[in-house]
Amino acid sequence: MSVTVSPEEQQDRPSGMLEVTPSLVDDVCELVEAGERGMVLNIAADLHAPDLARLLTHLPFEAAWELFHWLPVEDAGEVLAEIEGPLRADLLEDARPERVTEIIDELDSDDAADVLAELPDDLARQILTGLEDAADVQTLLGYDEDTAGGIMGTELVAVPESWTVEEATEEVRRNAETVEQIYAVFVVDPQDRLVGMLSLKTLLLSQARSVVSDLMDREYHWVSPDVDQEEVGRIMQHYDLVSLPVVNASGRLLGRITIDDVVDVIREEAEEDIQRMSGIATGNEELDASVFLVSRGRLPWLLLGLVGTIMAGFVVTQFEASLAEAVVLASFMPIMTAMAGNAAIQSSAITVQGLASGRLWTGDAFGRLGKELAVAFVNGVALAFTLAVFVSLIGFGGGNSIHLALVVSLSLFIIILLATTNGALVPVLLARMGVDPAVAMGPFVTTSNDILGLTVYFLIATSLYL
Amino acid sequence: MSVTVSPEEQQDRPSGMLEVTPSLVDDVCELVEAGERGMVLNIAADLHAPDLARLLTHLPFEAAWELFHWLPVEDAGEVLAEIEGPLRADLLEDARPERVTEIIDELDSDDAADVLAELPDDLARQILTGLEDAADVQTLLGYDEDTAGGIMGTELVAVPESWTVEEATEEVRRNAETVEQIYAVFVVDPQDRLVGMLSLKTLLLSQARSVVSDLMDREYHWVSPDVDQEEVGRIMQHYDLVSLPVVNASGRLLGRITIDDVVDVIREEAEEDIQRMSGIATGNEELDASVFLVSRGRLPWLLLGLVGTIMAGFVVTQFEASLAEAVVLASFMPIMTAMAGNAAIQSSAITVQGLASGRLWTGDAFGRLGKELAVAFVNGVALAFTLAVFVSLIGFGGGNSIHLALVVSLSLFIIILLATTNGALVPVLLARMGVDPAVAMGPFVTTSNDILGLTVYFLIATSLYL
Repeated sequence: MSVTVSPEEQQDRPSGMLEVTPSLVDDVCELVEAGERGMVLNIAADLHAPDLARLLTHLPFEAAWELFHWLPVEDAGEVLAEIEGPLRADLLEDARPERVTEIIDELDSDDAADVLAELPDDLARQILTGLEDAADVQTLLGYDEDTAGGIMGTELVAVPESWTVEEATEEVRRNAETVEQIYAVFVVDPQDRLVGMLSLKTLLLSQARSVVSDLMDREYHWVSPDVDQEEVGRIMQHYDLVSLPVVNASGRLLGRITIDDVVDVIREEAEEDIQRMSGIATGNEELDASVFLVSRGRLPWLLLGLVGTIMAGFVVTQFEASLAEAVVLASFMPIMTAMAGNAAIQSSAITVQGLASGRLWTGDAFGRLGKELAVAFVNGVALAFTLAVFVSLIGFGGGNSIHLALVVSLSLFIIILLATTNGALVPVLLARMGVDPAVAMGPFVTTSNDILGLTVYFLIATSLYL
Repeated sequence: MSVTVSPEEQQDRPSGMLEVTPSLVDDVCELVEAGERGMVLNIAADLHAPDLARLLTHLPFEAAWELFHWLPVEDAGEVLAEIEGPLRADLLEDARPERVTEIIDELDSDDAADVLAELPDDLARQILTGLEDAADVQTLLGYDEDTAGGIMGTELVAVPESWTVEEATEEVRRNAETVEQIYAVFVVDPQDRLVGMLSLKTLLLSQARSVVSDLMDREYHWVSPDVDQEEVGRIMQHYDLVSLPVVNASGRLLGRITIDDVVDVIREEAEEDIQRMSGIATGNEELDASVFLVSRGRLPWLLLGLVGTIMAGFVVTQFEASLAEAVVLASFMPIMTAMAGNAAIQSSAITVQGLASGRLWTGDAFGRLGKELAVAFVNGVALAFTLAVFVSLIGFGGGNSIHLALVVSLSLFIIILLATTNGALVPVLLARMGVDPAVAMGPFVTTSNDILGLTVYFLIATSLYL
């Protein structure tokens, strides 16, 4: 991740196009508040839709609403498709329903369905009935938004296999307006069942009289509408696809998913994974979510973590007598817990990634333990040595320094061995049980290793030091 | 992330194509060892190149090498492009240089440069001289592999603006073999400087006699070859591009980046982020990396973490007298450290993501502190209450339970407030200093909050409990 706007980013913009900077946001905000509609629309015309969307998200809501509704419907539609989070629905509320209908009519069917799903039910129903492709959008609304059906669009070009290249090209032309991105033409039988695909390149390079069925690719990938969007992303990425047809159980072509939608899915899923690893249960906290929503996403894990860590506290309670005897032992508790967590999260990250990408199978994973143990051995020796040097030089335990150094270093070494293998094993066990192994990487690793680290440490310390 | 192979995944395969399963791997392994070349090649023919690559990565190395060199050069080239990690170079070593040259000649220039960069220098130099597009590959080898120059390919169709649609189409046809994926034709001036782009759709739908300069898009995105690949991914994703030209300082067209390369970049970068967050310094640990490489990636952070956590140990040392007085206080140490880390990593994850995606600017971020404080307040109250109930019911501290419960709950509450704001602030400060804020999310958060948590806890406990 990187945040700074590089000089390249500026330089690589198409000439004449503006970049959204804090000062541009301030300027536009003032212009909107001053009611300078003409000047604002001039600036908006120099922004690509995704940049205009970014500008809106950085403006105060009132100014964003005002600007958005100054835009011609076509531009408003393009911008709306690029906006994420609650702002999208907020921009449409309190506007005339006729204008909202016109704006949503500008959207691709998949975006239209997404927007309607975010609007209050009453408003959504009212608008839906007025849409040009109401039936398509209605159908799309029936799919779970995280599935192939939820991300597919119905804008596509389909032709019978008996048509010629010339006829198919004419069909592309007829649909050129509604189907903006087109990478392939779908070939269907009289029952609308998908039977082949024809790339635009083949269409361009073939003779006008050639017949589609002679040119089409009969071997193609497809998904059913209930496939999870993450799986869709994996398939399109694995096979380098830019367009993937969605087909129902009887083989009928329902829609198509394009690579740009999937790129967003891949980014969203990566962000969700990182949020889940960080203990945000819902995995989809938005910057502009309410305090209540944010808390609802974060609190469950914190409470669970608290319970786990209270158990770690109980472990310590069992050794209170030892601590009373040698209170210096308490100083090493944070070292043992933190290092157990640090070592475990490294090995679990690698295992989880390997499992998720399909490069590692649960069957292979046990075989990896040998390597993890070897790595843990090397790192454990280095860490134990470093700790021993610190303790004996700085003299934590007064006169007992060397003895203390040996005991805590040995504990650290054993904890590194156990925590590393623990981190590599838990995700595999979870995967075998059908649980998403990514949850293992979250604060779960930290808490379970707090308990492990403290138990091992106190067992060794009480038997060797006291 | 999800690991289980869904029934859909099986069902959605093109008919006749095989799926790579552990039992298929076992079967192929036996067939290779038995020298059943014909049967193995039959199976390979039923696998897509990415699946065949997956099969190879799961086979024992000797069997993978054998199988790979049974493949005809065209297939071997396709598979090689799909293989990741050290296996790719390993498959080429010990093979006849003439065969290696033939295989690499099958690759796109960007893949060829990647593979050569992984081979031993001597071998790479020997092979490079024999390649058909040696000059292109040599140039590509000069770019850093994480930049636009490193991921671009030189396979593209470029035409002068004076040409007609018919001539441009002929040029596409002439290059159809080498340029497999084609989404747009690039338009250049006599000095090879990029002046426009023409989508395949426009080419298909325009009259044969129309002139390119009348049809081409003069407003397009481009990058210079030194732009970081992550930035390339962000640009292509932000603007929904499938093809992005790479242009040098004088405007000359050098190559093009296609969306499938960028999809891989987005996934790799997400994996790198997760690895860095997990304390793997290099961010690119491979499953089949050597113990030495793995340790080298993991040990630096562990050593740093050890030093940080030794400082946390020193904090405890300062309060040894208090601990000797009330050894029960030690039982709450893991709670304070773990909960500080858990709360901080949540708020820092959101801040880092917001900054990385451009949805949050460093200027806005301070304004977010109010919300983070509100969330921390709500969560802090819930957590403090829960801890108080546990402590007073279970009676950690013997007769002093209620008093102890109040003191530790108050500590926890204050620690949650501080750690949450700390987690949200540190990434912003790092970003302002020009440092990648993702490093803040790593075990850094855990360690720094260990110190914070213990200090606050002992200050409160010594003044209110003792």
